[in-house]
Amino acid sequence: MTPDATEQRVLEAIRQRRELVNEALESDVPMAEPERLYEASRYLLKAGGKRLRPTVSLLTAEALADVEPMSEDYRAFPTLAGGSIDVMTAAASIEVIQSFTLIHDDIMDDDDLRRGVPAVHKEYDTETAILAGDTLYAKAFELLTQTGADPANGLEAVRRLATTCIRICEGQALDIEFEHRNGVLPDEYLNMIELKTAVLYGTAAAIPAVLMGADDDVVEALYQYGIESGSAFQIQDDVLDLTVPSEKLGKQRGSDLVENKETIILLHARQQGVDVENLVEAKTADELSEAEVQAAVDELDDAGSIDYAREMAEDLTEQAKARLDVLPDNESRDLLCDIADYLITRGY
Amino acid sequence: MTPDATEQRVLEAIRQRRELVNEALESDVPMAEPERLYEASRYLLKAGGKRLRPTVSLLTAEALADVEPMSEDYRAFPTLAGGSIDVMTAAASIEVIQSFTLIHDDIMDDDDLRRGVPAVHKEYDTETAILAGDTLYAKAFELLTQTGADPANGLEAVRRLATTCIRICEGQALDIEFEHRNGVLPDEYLNMIELKTAVLYGTAAAIPAVLMGADDDVVEALYQYGIESGSAFQIQDDVLDLTVPSEKLGKQRGSDLVENKETIILLHARQQGVDVENLVEAKTADELSEAEVQAAVDELDDAGSIDYAREMAEDLTEQAKARLDVLPDNESRDLLCDIADYLITRGY
Repeated sequence: MTPDATEQRVLEAIRQRRELVNEALESDVPMAEPERLYEASRYLLKAGGKRLRPTVSLLTAEALADVEPMSEDYRAFPTLAGGSIDVMTAAASIEVIQSFTLIHDDIMDDDDLRRGVPAVHKEYDTETAILAGDTLYAKAFELLTQTGADPANGLEAVRRLATTCIRICEGQALDIEFEHRNGVLPDEYLNMIELKTAVLYGTAAAIPAVLMGADDDVVEALYQYGIESGSAFQIQDDVLDLTVPSEKLGKQRGSDLVENKETIILLHARQQGVDVENLVEAKTADELSEAEVQAAVDELDDAGSIDYAREMAEDLTEQAKARLDVLPDNESRDLLCDIADYLITRGY
Repeated sequence: MTPDATEQRVLEAIRQRRELVNEALESDVPMAEPERLYEASRYLLKAGGKRLRPTVSLLTAEALADVEPMSEDYRAFPTLAGGSIDVMTAAASIEVIQSFTLIHDDIMDDDDLRRGVPAVHKEYDTETAILAGDTLYAKAFELLTQTGADPANGLEAVRRLATTCIRICEGQALDIEFEHRNGVLPDEYLNMIELKTAVLYGTAAAIPAVLMGADDDVVEALYQYGIESGSAFQIQDDVLDLTVPSEKLGKQRGSDLVENKETIILLHARQQGVDVENLVEAKTADELSEAEVQAAVDELDDAGSIDYAREMAEDLTEQAKARLDVLPDNESRDLLCDIADYLITRGY
């Protein structure tokens, strides 16, 4: 399958489920009093987003249950032991956690924009944004208790989500720490992106299996699928910033080079003796010339740093896809494979 | 029983359990990496505090199980259906939530001090304080999944804690809103303090009953006990600020009058036609004279506002104590009664 055909299939799978996910978020996180708090809590959820994580959750459920994609009601979805659960609410809870982390991250990083609209702390204020995040945080746990799953499975899902949230906080703390520290090692960086980003993909994939009563080895394989493809996604981001033409990227190619952003490419290059602090003279993305970027990319290429990152992303993706062997061979499993490929072929 | 004797009994009950609670917090929220994040997360927990909420949880468990106080291992505590649970971890999870809310509240209110030490966002920084609160938040849920309770009871406990956290956020949002709004009604104020403060007392009392498999009406009665005694506590705070001599209070009597703090007393007085904005001329607590405070207190007294608040606190306390009739008649139940009394007789 060509990258373009893969992307088409993935985007179609997402598109088919997105409206259902949006409806679920609307009804599972309804307006309430005080109005301003709930408006702020729902603001980012309503601003859109691909809904990639909930799509992964829904596809995992469909692959596990071995049913035709979109053939079952996600609100009364068959479990492996008979009976049914609301797998949509579980998928929504993952997106709600994602939304909470974005709101708090934007405060910490003082980012102005998110999903093309002002960040919550800009549209409202910092106090309201802290509280909106805190509200969503609890809401996600409340939702996850309401899937109708066997209580032992429900409790294990809650435990996994709680542990995941702790890991995300650890990842964000490391990300902040790395901005102020020289000599970050590639392994430390990989650990950081796993914690900050990949664990929530892993949990999105694993939680439906937990709720449906899958065996531990299936749950663990799905979790690793998410960890590995989520990590590959972050690494590929670094590659794309340097290698995709600016007009396709939608921003200046090589902007990571002027933003003092540590990437796996630069960390590798530093280990190879490249003077990464002086790869470009420009101080802002606006000052960057295409020629300057190309010279820097050539130097990183010579050091093997771009290949190092690209191969790492590809290896992780292959590992992620192999994890899916625990699932029945069906269309939803193929789509989960496609998503892993898409995460390192998309990006502009 | 005289107020002094009640206070002695309550403080002794707290003292006996505090060391065990502190040990549980130390082992249930251990140091981990990244170090700075975990130091910040543990900073306020280690700064002390009465541990009133965990004490309420432990006493509720003992009263329900009808065992001698301190006679059973809290880590292997008998449930009503046989078997045992770790009720200490449940008690710790309540204190961890309390700690998270204080850390985030102090950021929102930009308070410098907490429990006699710098607030977390002052000792560290705002980013770290947001993350420390977020880490504790998830930690509390993780802990509550690990009590060894029947999974259905464990899941219901998680649901209750999640809903409680949502309510606390709503209460804090209302508190912030009320600072910028005139004409807050007493009922709105009572709703706010119930959400912001009392629901966590209610949950501290109810969760052991949930985990131990008590009937719904027992759980609900214990929840209401906490709601009512927690609300009485907040209301009595307003009374004490005006009526306890400064030397006993440890700060200038009447400081609420200059801080534009809406209290149930001032809200009532405004409804009675008192010009509450001009009760005192002083703009800071330092400028307040004892004579000026006394004149203001006399005016509020004439309007019936102080009695209104005092009677409300007393009525709530009597209601709270009556809720405990669902429990077996034993020493722990008596101590829960004493705590309700103590909450409106202590305070300086």
